[in-house]
Amino acid sequence: MNNIKFVEPHNIEKRSFELIQKELGDIILDPEKEPIIKRAIHTSADFDYLENLCFSENAIKNAKHAIKNGATIVTDTNMALAGINKKVAAKYGVNVHCFMADEDVFTEAEERGETRATISMERASKIEGPVIFAIGNAPTALIKLHEIIKEGKFKPELIIGVPVGFVNVVEAKELIMSLENLEYIVAKGRKGGSNIAAAICNALLYNI
Amino acid sequence: MNNIKFVEPHNIEKRSFELIQKELGDIILDPEKEPIIKRAIHTSADFDYLENLCFSENAIKNAKHAIKNGATIVTDTNMALAGINKKVAAKYGVNVHCFMADEDVFTEAEERGETRATISMERASKIEGPVIFAIGNAPTALIKLHEIIKEGKFKPELIIGVPVGFVNVVEAKELIMSLENLEYIVAKGRKGGSNIAAAICNALLYNI
Repeated sequence: MNNIKFVEPHNIEKRSFELIQKELGDIILDPEKEPIIKRAIHTSADFDYLENLCFSENAIKNAKHAIKNGATIVTDTNMALAGINKKVAAKYGVNVHCFMADEDVFTEAEERGETRATISMERASKIEGPVIFAIGNAPTALIKLHEIIKEGKFKPELIIGVPVGFVNVVEAKELIMSLENLEYIVAKGRKGGSNIAAAICNALLYNI
Repeated sequence: MNNIKFVEPHNIEKRSFELIQKELGDIILDPEKEPIIKRAIHTSADFDYLENLCFSENAIKNAKHAIKNGATIVTDTNMALAGINKKVAAKYGVNVHCFMADEDVFTEAEERGETRATISMERASKIEGPVIFAIGNAPTALIKLHEIIKEGKFKPELIIGVPVGFVNVVEAKELIMSLENLEYIVAKGRKGGSNIAAAICNALLYNI
């Protein structure tokens, strides 16, 4: 077929993580954060995630505890929803949900002149039991979560705050990091995306 | 709520593209490629896409013609599928499809010891009418497409070849670019992803 020697598909992921480590050279990562940082790099081939991922003190511990207790993961895009490993999530009784495409979310957003992300976060804050947010797209989702949490009515177990972009994104992430007693994993700066949000969720699910 | 002045949500995309242009400074892009390059940057906040996107001569013209003729877009992940604007696609009678999660694709892949991406590409090559591939994840999808096209049995209108990763990815992209008379948009090197594949499709759909 061709003369290139390809690595067998079942070995690709293992070999990829080895190559990432090789490129990191002497850098020693915090063992708890390591699978998350490496999976973000793996999903983007972008080593900026080595520097820009910020973790609150108990973010990972809290998230794993929540997963073991059947948390609901809420995303702000169907892309992030599609990227999260639902088979592994189901093992822990974890449900993954995105409100964005719901017809009534669209209608309410139109009526109130808000974004669908804002309405989705209001819906999510009514969920019973532990909740993890995986926000890879909408800064308005983070702005709304900041408001709801500030009011003291609701507290998620973790916010993965990794929207990507050039407008409102940096500021919205800073807002999340300014909250006291909130556990977060945030990609500081402009970078992130639904793929990064899903990768961080998967890294948590694979390393309970 | 907070003291940060946020840009109104409905202006975010417009403002984002302005900021991208501002950062490009004096660089003048080919007007046909510009919306594609800028949308890849918009979706990743990664200016490497300014350098790494390679277009065959008639890639964009061919793709737009195919879209206007109701092409089928085939993705190699449900994430890319989720990220493509189906409403705009439907306007042109464009159907977007991903075979990866089909039960019988899984079964056949197991039986034959192939990847699901390989089987999916075989299925896709049987589609009637014009086909555009949006490959953001699986190098084996590109390797299989290369093989099928070499045999002369099938020719897609465009291959968007932007898998991301550290193993087999660079080589698989080079294989696609080595094909004669094939139209492609390839992200040379390691970078890419389902988000980039979807962004390129959307840029094509938004600029017919």
